[in-house]
Amino acid sequence: MSRLRFGISLSLDGYVAGPEQSIEQPLGIGGEALHEWVFPLEAWRKPHGLRGGEVNESTPVMERSLANVGATIMGRNMFGGGPGPWNTEQPWIGWWKDNPPFHHPVFVLTHHRREPLPLKGGTTFHFVTGGIEDALDRAREAANGKDVWLSGGAETANEYLRAGLVDEMQLHLVPLLLGGGARLFEGVGTDMAGLRPVRTVATAKVTHLEFARR
Amino acid sequence: MSRLRFGISLSLDGYVAGPEQSIEQPLGIGGEALHEWVFPLEAWRKPHGLRGGEVNESTPVMERSLANVGATIMGRNMFGGGPGPWNTEQPWIGWWKDNPPFHHPVFVLTHHRREPLPLKGGTTFHFVTGGIEDALDRAREAANGKDVWLSGGAETANEYLRAGLVDEMQLHLVPLLLGGGARLFEGVGTDMAGLRPVRTVATAKVTHLEFARR
Repeated sequence: MSRLRFGISLSLDGYVAGPEQSIEQPLGIGGEALHEWVFPLEAWRKPHGLRGGEVNESTPVMERSLANVGATIMGRNMFGGGPGPWNTEQPWIGWWKDNPPFHHPVFVLTHHRREPLPLKGGTTFHFVTGGIEDALDRAREAANGKDVWLSGGAETANEYLRAGLVDEMQLHLVPLLLGGGARLFEGVGTDMAGLRPVRTVATAKVTHLEFARR
Repeated sequence: MSRLRFGISLSLDGYVAGPEQSIEQPLGIGGEALHEWVFPLEAWRKPHGLRGGEVNESTPVMERSLANVGATIMGRNMFGGGPGPWNTEQPWIGWWKDNPPFHHPVFVLTHHRREPLPLKGGTTFHFVTGGIEDALDRAREAANGKDVWLSGGAETANEYLRAGLVDEMQLHLVPLLLGGGARLFEGVGTDMAGLRPVRTVATAKVTHLEFARR
């Protein structure tokens, strides 16, 4: 059974991006620091085409993230290019340039229709206007038996959590404060929808909390 | 050197008490569940005059909380009795009845003057109207070389965190959502005031994140 999986880095005060997100600063003020634990990892660098890197206690966590993923879902804000109808004269192709690190179909939630965007290395962005369940159905079909990765950002993650559609969740808790920004779990309510702790991995830089439903 | 230490249980969505706190429900809706990890512990039951209990991975964490404390600070809301001037006809003596589990001086932050309230077992409540630094000075003096424990609630903890006065902090992260209530770190900003991770203890019920400044 194809599972919807999700992982996100958050601050001690519960933010997954800092305040004042913009094209220049897509993770908001201070938000980059949430990801400092991941960039040095060989397990992260290799799929991004980079050599070398560290192997540490976070390695198996990252490997679990990346294993067996056949499709990705993300929100319009995470794909980028600003709000509103798509610019057809200078089309935005995502933050990742012409060879994105996904190498599988990516479904972007949007209110504005757009033709699929095939790029190098097997990544095609599909733009879904039918809502989160439609995106999940299409991603599951495209994943062809593999899992679907929910990439974020916060608003999209919160929509899937609120709908009880997440099967596995990794929270990477980073010991810093952002003081504002985009909050995970905002509006999700109290229902964990069957997600229970299955594993916690603590390192000096980050504590990984892993949840799954049976 | 006497240190200001602080420990609190919080939900995945960052709340230390649920919504709609009241005299009937001092921890708000669902807030009791934040403390389910602690009540079965022998290390918690013994100082509360109860026999038996569990010894598990949370035991040393709780023992570290309780060791070497000479005075406690808490907010008016945590002491209870409702807001505004103290009722002099039927004086509120706290949630803990006539033999509270502190056994040392307790300093209650309030805007309303009140004479000290000595109770059984060595606990005397002192009511401090001079603000958080005055309360800390008085608690340090009363602790007589031992540490001062900051008991909460959220608002009081946030005031001390914002002022950079906390020397050690234990966060007990409980895998549940409260969906609303009193939030730790609200208004604290981005400054950890030198608090760095020193230890993380993960159990099936709770993840203990311990911080200290050098």
